[in-house]
Amino acid sequence: MNRYDRELAEGILFTDFYQLSMAQLYFAREIHEIPAQFDFFFRSYPDYHGHKAGFCINAGMESLLNWMGKSRFDDLSLNYLRSHKKNDGKPFFSEDFLNWLKDNGNFDSISMQAITEGRVVHPNVPLVTVQGPLIMTQILESALLNHLNFQILIATKASRLKEAGRGQLVLEFGMRRGPHTGTNAATRAAMIGGADFSSNTGMSYLLGYPPKGTHAHSMVQAFMALGYGELGAFEAYAEIYPDDCLLLVDTINTLESGIPNAIKVFEKLRKQGHEPVGIRLDSGDLAYLSIKAAKMLNCAGFDKTRIVLSNQLDEMVIWQILTQIEEEAPKYGVDPDRLIKRMIYGVGTSLVTSKGNSSLDGVYKMTAVYNNGIWIPAFKISDSPEKTINPGYKKVWRIYDDRFIAVADLLSLYDENPTDWDEVLLRHPAEIDRKRILKKQSVSVIELLQKDILKEGKLLYNMPDLSDIRQICESDLKMIDPGVKRIVNPHIYHVSLTEKLWNLKHSMLNKSTTNNGYIV
Amino acid sequence: MNRYDRELAEGILFTDFYQLSMAQLYFAREIHEIPAQFDFFFRSYPDYHGHKAGFCINAGMESLLNWMGKSRFDDLSLNYLRSHKKNDGKPFFSEDFLNWLKDNGNFDSISMQAITEGRVVHPNVPLVTVQGPLIMTQILESALLNHLNFQILIATKASRLKEAGRGQLVLEFGMRRGPHTGTNAATRAAMIGGADFSSNTGMSYLLGYPPKGTHAHSMVQAFMALGYGELGAFEAYAEIYPDDCLLLVDTINTLESGIPNAIKVFEKLRKQGHEPVGIRLDSGDLAYLSIKAAKMLNCAGFDKTRIVLSNQLDEMVIWQILTQIEEEAPKYGVDPDRLIKRMIYGVGTSLVTSKGNSSLDGVYKMTAVYNNGIWIPAFKISDSPEKTINPGYKKVWRIYDDRFIAVADLLSLYDENPTDWDEVLLRHPAEIDRKRILKKQSVSVIELLQKDILKEGKLLYNMPDLSDIRQICESDLKMIDPGVKRIVNPHIYHVSLTEKLWNLKHSMLNKSTTNNGYIV
Repeated sequence: MNRYDRELAEGILFTDFYQLSMAQLYFAREIHEIPAQFDFFFRSYPDYHGHKAGFCINAGMESLLNWMGKSRFDDLSLNYLRSHKKNDGKPFFSEDFLNWLKDNGNFDSISMQAITEGRVVHPNVPLVTVQGPLIMTQILESALLNHLNFQILIATKASRLKEAGRGQLVLEFGMRRGPHTGTNAATRAAMIGGADFSSNTGMSYLLGYPPKGTHAHSMVQAFMALGYGELGAFEAYAEIYPDDCLLLVDTINTLESGIPNAIKVFEKLRKQGHEPVGIRLDSGDLAYLSIKAAKMLNCAGFDKTRIVLSNQLDEMVIWQILTQIEEEAPKYGVDPDRLIKRMIYGVGTSLVTSKGNSSLDGVYKMTAVYNNGIWIPAFKISDSPEKTINPGYKKVWRIYDDRFIAVADLLSLYDENPTDWDEVLLRHPAEIDRKRILKKQSVSVIELLQKDILKEGKLLYNMPDLSDIRQICESDLKMIDPGVKRIVNPHIYHVSLTEKLWNLKHSMLNKSTTNNGYIV
Repeated sequence: MNRYDRELAEGILFTDFYQLSMAQLYFAREIHEIPAQFDFFFRSYPDYHGHKAGFCINAGMESLLNWMGKSRFDDLSLNYLRSHKKNDGKPFFSEDFLNWLKDNGNFDSISMQAITEGRVVHPNVPLVTVQGPLIMTQILESALLNHLNFQILIATKASRLKEAGRGQLVLEFGMRRGPHTGTNAATRAAMIGGADFSSNTGMSYLLGYPPKGTHAHSMVQAFMALGYGELGAFEAYAEIYPDDCLLLVDTINTLESGIPNAIKVFEKLRKQGHEPVGIRLDSGDLAYLSIKAAKMLNCAGFDKTRIVLSNQLDEMVIWQILTQIEEEAPKYGVDPDRLIKRMIYGVGTSLVTSKGNSSLDGVYKMTAVYNNGIWIPAFKISDSPEKTINPGYKKVWRIYDDRFIAVADLLSLYDENPTDWDEVLLRHPAEIDRKRILKKQSVSVIELLQKDILKEGKLLYNMPDLSDIRQICESDLKMIDPGVKRIVNPHIYHVSLTEKLWNLKHSMLNKSTTNNGYIV
């Protein structure tokens, strides 16, 4: 193998090969420059084996745009394609096609409208609408899906962890079990969705946040190996980091050694005018140990010192720990609310791999083709009505009720404007009898969700900082119903069609039975 | 956010921050250059919800060595560290420490022995033994775990898919749902473990294999939108790729439209002197459709044309499809064995995300410290006996029986040599009463598994090509018992200790109860 060449492996050839075999076919048939439209949407919320999300957090657009901006067919990539052979031994790609790619094989022709990062998003809603020449909209598919599916998946998991932890700090610790360099995208997405900080050093600096972390068991182990003992290790740590002293107390025995040693060090620190930060528990019964640790720390006068939990946490484990603390802490004379408010969660593997559901089912489907001067809706039926796509050039609206809580996302045809209407009819995408009418007086805001992002390759959208994206996310989460936010058995959020779009979809569906399934 | 800077985010700062806070502590206490030894091992086979692996495939070393070779503290990374503040607002890192990192912050001091890529590996066996100054062995931890855990996980899944598919071609199609750029590592690992080709274009070229893939539904959709129909799409494809013609037949209706249209095109191709490659089925009841497709193709004289399956395949789905084909095909006059031999599996999401188990639990534990001229075993007990580490500087042996089948991996002290012994006593790592004696006459080979990889940063091992690694893997798989290879309820492979190592471990364990758990 050649040594890993990032430019080649992560550039324009970071794609499924069939995009290129199709591209050459479009070129050969001279249909490559026909304008086409593709929608990106996911079909279902992540289902984590026994508990399921009721919403997702949108993420990945900035990474995608960075990739699109720098990825184009250059000599390096073209030479590899030139070497590719057909089964008859002749070059797979024609020189005409390769020359076209050399001059035009970039994303400067692409226009894009999208729901921005950090927003709460739902199934079957076009999160991104891509328009451009058929050939480049096709070539974009694999990278677009790769960037967006993964980051939405991880941002969503982070949001669930933050929800389970009742808003306390969540730290992303996942690098050691993360997916190679994809870990960096996971760190970013986690911080969009709910993680407050990360142990990932380089990525944290790039994102403008200080990386977090103190020490591992191996530090204690090393000091013990040299005869200093656990207390010696803690003292050394406190000496060099007196105002940043957070000690891992479970290397030997949490209650008999770790916490008593930590308290000795904390008392010394305080005498020297420093306030200790906290302790970390990384094994054992974390609910029970949290209560006992709080009790011991409280008795020693450290009732604000933080308690960091780690070790295979996920949203269900955090929920269970908090439930148990609420039930058990009073029996030990510990106030559960005060304890819960001093806790911090270090979450690794389950966050960066979205444990229980390791992929989002996002797809990129052709929904219109520009022919004879107009966008003609394109369609693909499916055996299951839920999987039949919503055709055409559309707009996406979010409807808020009089409490300013989002009650539905509404897909309309592009020329419709529900903000003008006296009442909004919401139709279920598949079922004819399921509809709902919202009267104007019960609606506070109807928001157009997609923004203009790219116009023929030109960036129209000012990429926000991570801190702004995090605020967008927080703000959106305040505007969804608590029932939708439940981490188990969430309330179903409505994604609906306007009457016109419903009629278009179902008339195409009816015609398709007599026309081999496909219509434009 | 700054735009993604790969050098920063994927270089030496691709690490958990605590490695650096510990490193500075070691430096401040002048123990940073004490030689330390860490073992990398995983604790359990992946468990995929209801089915569990009985072995893993080793992978990731080349990626790790590439990373180690190019990652060092340079001005860019040091400047970020210089900007990091303590809670009191002062610089977190001292200039002395940063200067030391500038001169010495690289992996040129690291020695490494390891089991090489492609080998079958088992829990609790040191796959990598790292030796070097405490500070750099510590800093290596996060990246080492990141590179190895993920690639072993994916290589193992690939091996299971290949096993389920009974050796037929497996194609890796996972980019669209893969973990961002981590997808490239997944592609490489998948091809080590069992995938024969990948759709990942850039990575395939780097690995020296042609990427695979033909066309998507969108190609048919585009041609239909322009009035050519599915047949027109197929004809266009066949015209440009007459010797590489593999057609996706389920865009409209597999049996009524797709396969009949494909056969028309295939007949035309054959008249022109070309042999069609095959069809791909991507939806519906793949077992039933495979049988019907084979029947239709056979009747038309295309009895060798390949049938590619895709759509949410994993090892259980493939197994189920093949079982059903064996039962049902004869009823349709189709020979199941011949059908199975013409099938190809395109596997995406479940392969690159290791569906059902998205992480390997590999850890990196201090096992010895060099003090007063000798390696002193380091130890850490655990509440659960299985998690107590195997201490000291060890060797790893694989014992083959008289059929040349591997029957056990044996961990010994470094100065032991079981090849000299008349009989080999295998002791269970945790349980005192479980032991087994292998007589010399029942043992054919005792193989030393770890190779010398690095000696103080110098590469001693000639990195094999991917094709060689694949052969190593195939060859190892022939030398494990079929029971161990079962994809459900595999037979347990023995990982054992020699008597001497067992005695060392358990004497340390006994002493630890009177000495706060930690001993060196």
